Amino acid sequence: MKPSMSVLGTGRMGSALARALLQAGYRTTVWNRTREKAEPLTALGATLAPTVRQAIDASEIVIVNVSDYAATAALLRANDVAPGLAGKLIVELTSGTPEGARETSGWAATHGAQYIDGAILATPDFIGTDAGTILLSGALEPFTANETVFRALGGNVQHIGTEPGRANALDSALLALMWGALFGGLHAIAVCRAEDIDVGELGRQWKATAPVVEGLVADLIKRTGAGRFASDAETLSSISPHYGAFQHLKDLMEARSIDRTVVDGYDAIFSRAIASGHLHDDFAALSQFMGKA
Amino acid sequence: MKPSMSVLGTGRMGSALARALLQAGYRTTVWNRTREKAEPLTALGATLAPTVRQAIDASEIVIVNVSDYAATAALLRANDVAPGLAGKLIVELTSGTPEGARETSGWAATHGAQYIDGAILATPDFIGTDAGTILLSGALEPFTANETVFRALGGNVQHIGTEPGRANALDSALLALMWGALFGGLHAIAVCRAEDIDVGELGRQWKATAPVVEGLVADLIKRTGAGRFASDAETLSSISPHYGAFQHLKDLMEARSIDRTVVDGYDAIFSRAIASGHLHDDFAALSQFMGKA
Ligand SMILES: NC(=O)c1ccc[n+]([C@@H]2O[C@H](COP(=O)([O-])OP(=O)(O)OC[C@H]3O[C@@H](n4cnc5c(N)ncnc54)[C@H](OP(=O)(O)O)[C@@H]3O)[C@@H](O)[C@H]2O)c1
Ligand SMILES: NC(=O)c1ccc[n+]([C@@H]2O[C@H](COP(=O)([O-])OP(=O)(O)OC[C@H]3O[C@@H](n4cnc5c(N)ncnc54)[C@H](OP(=O)(O)O)[C@@H]3O)[C@@H](O)[C@H]2O)c1
Repeated sequence: MKPSMSVLGTGRMGSALARALLQAGYRTTVWNRTREKAEPLTALGATLAPTVRQAIDASEIVIVNVSDYAATAALLRANDVAPGLAGKLIVELTSGTPEGARETSGWAATHGAQYIDGAILATPDFIGTDAGTILLSGALEPFTANETVFRALGGNVQHIGTEPGRANALDSALLALMWGALFGGLHAIAVCRAEDIDVGELGRQWKATAPVVEGLVADLIKRTGAGRFASDAETLSSISPHYGAFQHLKDLMEARSIDRTVVDGYDAIFSRAIASGHLHDDFAALSQFMGKA
Repeated sequence: MKPSMSVLGTGRMGSALARALLQAGYRTTVWNRTREKAEPLTALGATLAPTVRQAIDASEIVIVNVSDYAATAALLRANDVAPGLAGKLIVELTSGTPEGARETSGWAATHGAQYIDGAILATPDFIGTDAGTILLSGALEPFTANETVFRALGGNVQHIGTEPGRANALDSALLALMWGALFGGLHAIAVCRAEDIDVGELGRQWKATAPVVEGLVADLIKRTGAGRFASDAETLSSISPHYGAFQHLKDLMEARSIDRTVVDGYDAIFSRAIASGHLHDDFAALSQFMGKA
């Protein structure tokens, strides 16, 4: 039988989670601090709970998706709420640190609740689709018992370890990658504006080149995992041509008064690796120079 | 009839260009400063020219792909070489600044050569494939007349304007995006190592989440082009949750002694936008804060 579900927090992401559950036929109760944001979900079949406690009482599984763990604590640790959690499965999908997850997991245990911590690696539009990625960590049993529920939220749901902090740690790693690309996108936009290039042309060429970038990052990760830092026959490009082309970007940014703080940070990493004799090694060799200077 | 082709510079990229031409049936002459790097191409049918001048004399179209424009100048501006360029089409595919392209274009004109400047947005493995992207700028006529040749080098060859510096400018913009993703990848690797997460797991999840990142960057570019900075119904995520999750990454990097120079650069941009009242605007609003502080 399908478990009944509650979703605490129906902001952009929480609303998408609730919609995916309703779509998959789960009896779903929702609660949100600002009630108006939860109301549109009733038209899709959700029950709107007037209080957090009523939302918890209504279901076997309680998904939490608010801004941060401080907000989660404010909700769950209230005197009239916490006792209601005994026997429930809490699925905490709010973003946070590994420490936050470990601490909340411990707290849940002392209140007799099962606990799975998760990190959503997708924008709301990917929730409920095959490409929706959600990492989970914590006790394995409640995951295995409810895998169908999790799959309804995202086709790519992965339980990556029993240590509850693991999902948040890998989330931060992947977010670092995402911000890298996004701030790179902001630099690209700044260069195009300065050089009078239509941003639409940038969009078209990003579409064309994204697979190359995706492949380069995958190669970087693979080579680093294998410790293959020296250039070899499969090296796509070594540090030397990267650093050469990088000078042109720096020159252009300087000439056009674009903020160079981020790219000066790249330069520091390049420079440490080159000073240590890695100029002709694979780009992956830079991964050895990421510690504090 | 197919024009005859010469390739000056057969490093990683030049060799891939020569192989693609040979594959497509062009009579191809190659020259490289370090002769040994050109020799393997003779087994594929290339003619190895002993001097730059002989390579130029052998063909109608001369592709140059060396480290930088200084190397190009060293090759083409030698007294015994320059006079051979009259009537040839020079295709300069070396990476460089817009200024470098404009200057080289002017020099070529005074020597009676046609000139197209290009920028390769692909690693060597993409050369000769449909997904190979090469941007070209400069005179349109020699491009139109030789479009088949260019298509043999990469399925996605685009002539993006008659101003010769344009290809290099857009190249730098797209490289900025690529380095963003690559240095983001280096940060992700550093976090995984510190948190004892298998780098292979990072690779698997990067594969799963790359389409999300690709979509976010495309959305950023599209919204910036349209000036749609306020949050609206299509906003995937506003600055506020980004900045919230970003604190977790900073905390984790600080706790694990990972170099924060690059992410402190992101922080400066976030902070400028937030201080100007954009906390609840779309992430794209950050594009207004990329000027020198
Ligand atoms: N959007 C994305 O693309 C995305 C992607 C991956 C992960 N996430 C994560 O998902 C979580 C939610 O993000 P979102 O995009 O949905 O943000 P959002 O639209 O800003 O929603 C935030 C939610 O948290 C609630 N909240 C905040 N503080 C609260 C408190 N003290 N007590 C009770 N409720 C509180 C808000 O309630 P009110 O409506 O009353 O303000 C709202 O429901 C965050 O951890 C975010 O990092 C989001
Ligand atoms: N590899 C990539 O993924 C990639 C991607 C996009 C664009 N590019 C661009 O393509 C160009 C070549 O890159 P690459 O990866 O092929 O680099 P590479 O393997 O290091 O080759 C560099 C080439 O330049 C030649 N060269 C350097 N200085 C010279 C000089 N003063 N005189 C004559 N020849 C000189 C080298 O000759 P020797 O063999 O004698 O040293 C070699 O043929 C660069 O502008 C790079 O930015 C490369």
